[in-house]
Amino acid sequence: MTLKKYFPIIVSSPSGAGKNSVCDMVVEKCANVVYSISYTTRPIRTTEEDGVDYHFVSEEKFKKMIDEDRFLEWAQYLGYYYGTSKKMVEEVIADEKYIILAIETKGALKFMKRRPDALSIFIFPPSMKELEKRLRNRNTDSSEIIETRLENARHEIADCVYYDRFVINDNLDRVSKEIINLIEKKSKGLDIYG
Amino acid sequence: MTLKKYFPIIVSSPSGAGKNSVCDMVVEKCANVVYSISYTTRPIRTTEEDGVDYHFVSEEKFKKMIDEDRFLEWAQYLGYYYGTSKKMVEEVIADEKYIILAIETKGALKFMKRRPDALSIFIFPPSMKELEKRLRNRNTDSSEIIETRLENARHEIADCVYYDRFVINDNLDRVSKEIINLIEKKSKGLDIYG
Repeated sequence: MTLKKYFPIIVSSPSGAGKNSVCDMVVEKCANVVYSISYTTRPIRTTEEDGVDYHFVSEEKFKKMIDEDRFLEWAQYLGYYYGTSKKMVEEVIADEKYIILAIETKGALKFMKRRPDALSIFIFPPSMKELEKRLRNRNTDSSEIIETRLENARHEIADCVYYDRFVINDNLDRVSKEIINLIEKKSKGLDIYG
Repeated sequence: MTLKKYFPIIVSSPSGAGKNSVCDMVVEKCANVVYSISYTTRPIRTTEEDGVDYHFVSEEKFKKMIDEDRFLEWAQYLGYYYGTSKKMVEEVIADEKYIILAIETKGALKFMKRRPDALSIFIFPPSMKELEKRLRNRNTDSSEIIETRLENARHEIADCVYYDRFVINDNLDRVSKEIINLIEKKSKGLDIYG
């Protein structure tokens, strides 16, 4: 068996269950885990930096990249394209680092097919009530949008069975340590399932 | 708000994820948590005791109990009936104890509708691979049955969203303590969702 020491890390969760916060903490704690930087056609926001938050490209450029099979996965949301570059993932791994992606389940499943060496983690909220509370506390969405997010969450949870490992985000510090522990285990070729 | 100090506890998990072992340990650790004893029409095994493992009754008696609405939930498996007596649950609660049920999701959902005061907990395996390993290690089922159990597990997991709380059975001692902690919190009227 060839041991692949470095690999991509896929983290998915229903919206509001904390995949971004968890990934932030993992990246903060581990110098050799870096964020994936997606390509997008959505306009840059004043708080964002090109090449840091996203690679901002034109729709023409993005479609050309699709044609050239340069994405491991891509999707369209609310009229804009988002995609993960194959080359970027390969370069980070070649650079002897782990690349981490906080990504929704549909993109994640596509990614796993093309990179079966990935470590895939599904994060559950402690409960659906807590998920709803977190969504309401963000104060960013209307009641209708929150209902839609909760309905989506139910579908996303059904996709959890395709992930290597389940974790519950009951405590950000604990769950980030649990993920770091899984990364270490997998990099040493140890059992990550039990 | 009326505080109900005692309540039923529903524990579900896919077959092989350890609901029975978890409930055994909770009952062992807590003198005031007792097992629900189901009624069944299945024949008694030599290792079993009537009124301890199950209440063994005739199909005629069971059907009469259904007609008299004496079950909180009942189901048929492999030709035999299984049901949870309403009166038994009420008596245990009146006796100032908690009653715990290790039960599959369909029965659990029926139970929750009729006893919305129940604490409902869904136990996940750490991963689907681990679930499969545990099922294979039991050496009780053929490969076909294991495949069916895994397929059922995928459906059961989709039902998790109806439970109060998600826990992962990565360690029997830890998860039983987590459940005892949830029982204590709920009995004190504290938040059990976060």
